[in-house]
Amino acid sequence: MASYNVDFEPVGRRGKCRDDESLLECAHRLGVGIVSLCGGQGKSHCCKVQILKGSTSKPTKNEIECFSPEELKNGYRLACQTYINSDCKVRVPLESLTTPQRIQLEGLEIDVKLQPPVSSYYVQVSSPSMSDLQADGERIIERLNRQFNLSCRKIDIDVLRGISPLLRSFNWETKVFVRDDEIIAIGSRQSSGVGLAVDLGTTKIAGYLLDLSSGKTLSSEGIMNPQISYGEDIISRLTYAMESSAKAVKLQKEVVEALNRLTANLCSKANVKLEEVVEAVIVGNTAMHHLLLNLPVKQLAFSPFIPAVQGALDIKARDVGLRIAPGAYIHLLPNIAGFVGADHVAMLLATKKIWEGENLVIALDIGTNTEVSLIDNGSITSVSCASGPAFEGAHIKHGMRATDGAIERVQLTEEGVEYQTVGGIAPVGLCGSGIIDAIAQLYLSGVISKEGRMNDHPRVRIHDNKREFMLVSEKERGSPPAITVTQEDVREIQLAKGAIRSGINVLLQEKGRSEEEIEKVIIAGAFGSYINIKSAVAIGMLPSLPLDRFQQVGNAAGIGAKLALLSTSERHSAESIAHGISYIELAASPHYEDIFIEAMYFG
Amino acid sequence: MASYNVDFEPVGRRGKCRDDESLLECAHRLGVGIVSLCGGQGKSHCCKVQILKGSTSKPTKNEIECFSPEELKNGYRLACQTYINSDCKVRVPLESLTTPQRIQLEGLEIDVKLQPPVSSYYVQVSSPSMSDLQADGERIIERLNRQFNLSCRKIDIDVLRGISPLLRSFNWETKVFVRDDEIIAIGSRQSSGVGLAVDLGTTKIAGYLLDLSSGKTLSSEGIMNPQISYGEDIISRLTYAMESSAKAVKLQKEVVEALNRLTANLCSKANVKLEEVVEAVIVGNTAMHHLLLNLPVKQLAFSPFIPAVQGALDIKARDVGLRIAPGAYIHLLPNIAGFVGADHVAMLLATKKIWEGENLVIALDIGTNTEVSLIDNGSITSVSCASGPAFEGAHIKHGMRATDGAIERVQLTEEGVEYQTVGGIAPVGLCGSGIIDAIAQLYLSGVISKEGRMNDHPRVRIHDNKREFMLVSEKERGSPPAITVTQEDVREIQLAKGAIRSGINVLLQEKGRSEEEIEKVIIAGAFGSYINIKSAVAIGMLPSLPLDRFQQVGNAAGIGAKLALLSTSERHSAESIAHGISYIELAASPHYEDIFIEAMYFG
Repeated sequence: MASYNVDFEPVGRRGKCRDDESLLECAHRLGVGIVSLCGGQGKSHCCKVQILKGSTSKPTKNEIECFSPEELKNGYRLACQTYINSDCKVRVPLESLTTPQRIQLEGLEIDVKLQPPVSSYYVQVSSPSMSDLQADGERIIERLNRQFNLSCRKIDIDVLRGISPLLRSFNWETKVFVRDDEIIAIGSRQSSGVGLAVDLGTTKIAGYLLDLSSGKTLSSEGIMNPQISYGEDIISRLTYAMESSAKAVKLQKEVVEALNRLTANLCSKANVKLEEVVEAVIVGNTAMHHLLLNLPVKQLAFSPFIPAVQGALDIKARDVGLRIAPGAYIHLLPNIAGFVGADHVAMLLATKKIWEGENLVIALDIGTNTEVSLIDNGSITSVSCASGPAFEGAHIKHGMRATDGAIERVQLTEEGVEYQTVGGIAPVGLCGSGIIDAIAQLYLSGVISKEGRMNDHPRVRIHDNKREFMLVSEKERGSPPAITVTQEDVREIQLAKGAIRSGINVLLQEKGRSEEEIEKVIIAGAFGSYINIKSAVAIGMLPSLPLDRFQQVGNAAGIGAKLALLSTSERHSAESIAHGISYIELAASPHYEDIFIEAMYFG
Repeated sequence: MASYNVDFEPVGRRGKCRDDESLLECAHRLGVGIVSLCGGQGKSHCCKVQILKGSTSKPTKNEIECFSPEELKNGYRLACQTYINSDCKVRVPLESLTTPQRIQLEGLEIDVKLQPPVSSYYVQVSSPSMSDLQADGERIIERLNRQFNLSCRKIDIDVLRGISPLLRSFNWETKVFVRDDEIIAIGSRQSSGVGLAVDLGTTKIAGYLLDLSSGKTLSSEGIMNPQISYGEDIISRLTYAMESSAKAVKLQKEVVEALNRLTANLCSKANVKLEEVVEAVIVGNTAMHHLLLNLPVKQLAFSPFIPAVQGALDIKARDVGLRIAPGAYIHLLPNIAGFVGADHVAMLLATKKIWEGENLVIALDIGTNTEVSLIDNGSITSVSCASGPAFEGAHIKHGMRATDGAIERVQLTEEGVEYQTVGGIAPVGLCGSGIIDAIAQLYLSGVISKEGRMNDHPRVRIHDNKREFMLVSEKERGSPPAITVTQEDVREIQLAKGAIRSGINVLLQEKGRSEEEIEKVIIAGAFGSYINIKSAVAIGMLPSLPLDRFQQVGNAAGIGAKLALLSTSERHSAESIAHGISYIELAASPHYEDIFIEAMYFG
């Protein structure tokens, strides 16, 4: 009986699959919640997966009936009918998952004076006649300008493409949406103007629909970034995009289609029409920004990592393929450098009230790339740290993302190991906050040395010639395998946390400041919100400061996107933040390697 | 032996086709120059035609080899292999024609101070490095603004999509093309900025490529408007577009693809690249304008005939599908009303130096729709006359467009009829100027009465129960049929010329002026350039004035497009002309029917 490695994406669960178990059985054993309505009889679409890599059994008759030849060609299969005969990478579409992944949607409250870039006006005109032959467009624009004392000059071409039948169906009463000097949408007199704010992460996408006239969030939703199938980290995605322009277009289409689905869901939840979405703000890191816009990325992927553009952009939604109101724009906040993007600017914008007026603040957004800013009396210096995907569960033996069954809290006690899982169900693996907790506990209890070496302990065993600490033994779990933290896992975490800590240390050194002077540490991002600060300090990922100096602010990038959506003066503020930032390239910093090695130690 | 009616488009030649002659033989007999390289053996693509309507023999083996199933499905055939067995409409693609149609390209000379909307700047920047991390876009725009004291703020998204590899391939030396505050193209330091001017007629399209820095015309070309296959006149095309949005899109695609081919040819002739075309101006009548932009047309097709928009437009070329420089715009001159379009504005712009300062001027552009303006000391009043397609040869028994073999000049002498054909070859039919000449001669010699009745004459015969005048008898021609002017042809011309003359008369009546006060009559358009003014006056199409008051100005709409391409102040001028025009709806004019009936008389 052979067994192969299988990697379920985008949930990020890896494990062994035997050749006598179906992909569905394997997924369930590994804790990946694939829907199975017909109980594995291959009679429904529900356990649809896509084989991205590797070799499998041939499609069954059921599957041939179930899928189009095109779908079969693209690797679509029913998990319950499929057996693998090599290492495989399998995509589980969102609709096949029983439990959605935990995506951070909430964060700071919004408190902003409304100055949306799009205003709406109710306009009523007389209908044309043989004695009043004015064209439809001019009829509206002249009335609008006269009545509201505006100087609107343009009507978007896509608005013009619908204007004549619409005005007649509205009986010449209409709501006109104006951005600068341009009409970007018209609607019935009842139509409202809503805006879309998106935090486009490498792994996750958070979307919000806001009422532009009240500032209220009408709906919110989180989805996975589907580009993850083409590479988990930024560099592998950029590499994919560089292979051909068709591949770059494919990556763009994947994410745009995801945004279109997300927007449709948000609208449906809020009971508004797509055409009522008259503005969008999207924030992401520089690579996500470039891949979304299909900008060139080769110069971004290689030293000195130059963006194609760094300033804020206003682009017609149609030029990206986003289906909202006909003439609507997408606003993209400015990027700072190749690896410090608009999402970090958005985070700094959202937390401005926290850091403004303080003497010394550290603000960080932890992810596969961690951006760190040091704010010295309002003057900002930023670095980017390659912290890698370990906190997302990758390269960790029993790592997984924060979905149901992931251990997210760990406590070592005299009796053994206490833990808590996402969803409170039986454990299937470890997510980032669980790993940090576990390693902190192991370090504090002496199982791991300052240098990261795993010492002897009743729960430490040698498995496959490697040392590992049994968090949940086979016996405790009731079935193999044990959930463990391996010596190699410890090394991965040392590299990840060392990258972050060395970024902080380089910034302090650069500005001649000491750790103790830090008044506040702002921690943004989904992962940053779930970690136990005590543990992060214990392993030396974060500076050793009183706990009340730390503030976990949730998805601050999303909040920043909302602020920019609701107020043009927030956009100006974001631009002046971005403009004022000094960026330091870590690799070019003196003694960086020494600082990094030092930062890898625990404690 | 049966025979059927066949209509060769877009050349507009109609005739009988016997069921024992191939379409190729019939075409040649009727004077339609279809290429036949293999001598009718069906061994080459050269006599390719498309059956638009009607029933034919089945495709031969040769044709099945020659065409794809898709092409066969769309009615593509080899003319030499095809026999018809019903009335047919056949499209002869331009590439299958031995002689291109005569399309008016030349006109007034251009005399304008260059103020093109797009300026070019040579910019050289240093390459980025670890100590100079500025993004590519900002690197260019900052240097540009500093060096030339500009305040450029935007870079078009499609320019950004190419900027990084381009700048590196240019070794950081580039020509930057700026329109208002936006970079719309970048090129190598050698690249030049050229512009495209297009007169988009219902039947014909004239295109010109101009050097924006010298104003010189680099190349010019005329093609047929391919939309003609969906209807010869404006109303039938609008009707087609109204049937479904897919059909409207089809009409748009047809014309845009024709413009793309035209532009590619113009560029190839002038040895410039498509990406060097940094601006386009397109003028057409309101319907062509709306169909090109895919604007709604239903309200344009029915009374009170309202355009979706009438002001000048600046639209990204990509939003129409025109493939030129990535960020380039198309400028569209303003329309005046449903049936007086931007082409008439362009004509008035081009002839401004002729009519400015004059006391009373008539300016007209003769076509299936004839626009007439009366300019009273600079104040312009316009009407649109439904003159119909008779001058294009339609609805005239032996009518055809002005291609080789069309009789274009006619003179009745004591000996018989003298005539002149396009290309100087044997006559095959009559084009518009030939028909006007013929009818004028018939009227002046008393063969036709003032009311349009055809009297007896040695050359008048009864054929198919109808009176007709033999211009070229079967004997003179050497083969049947005789080329004749029928009583019905006379009626068609009376309707057409009556429409034009009544437009002029309504304008004079409206302004309380008399015919004798007219100082100048400006006649624009291809057809208007070829007609014999004496004949047009003789039949009463034009007012009876001394011949030196008439001025034939060729394709003035094309010249107007060129002026608007080269100068923004000409664009302002066009807008103020359009804005100042009073439009009169003929049908709403008092006593219009009386005036029209009066205008149908000859003399």
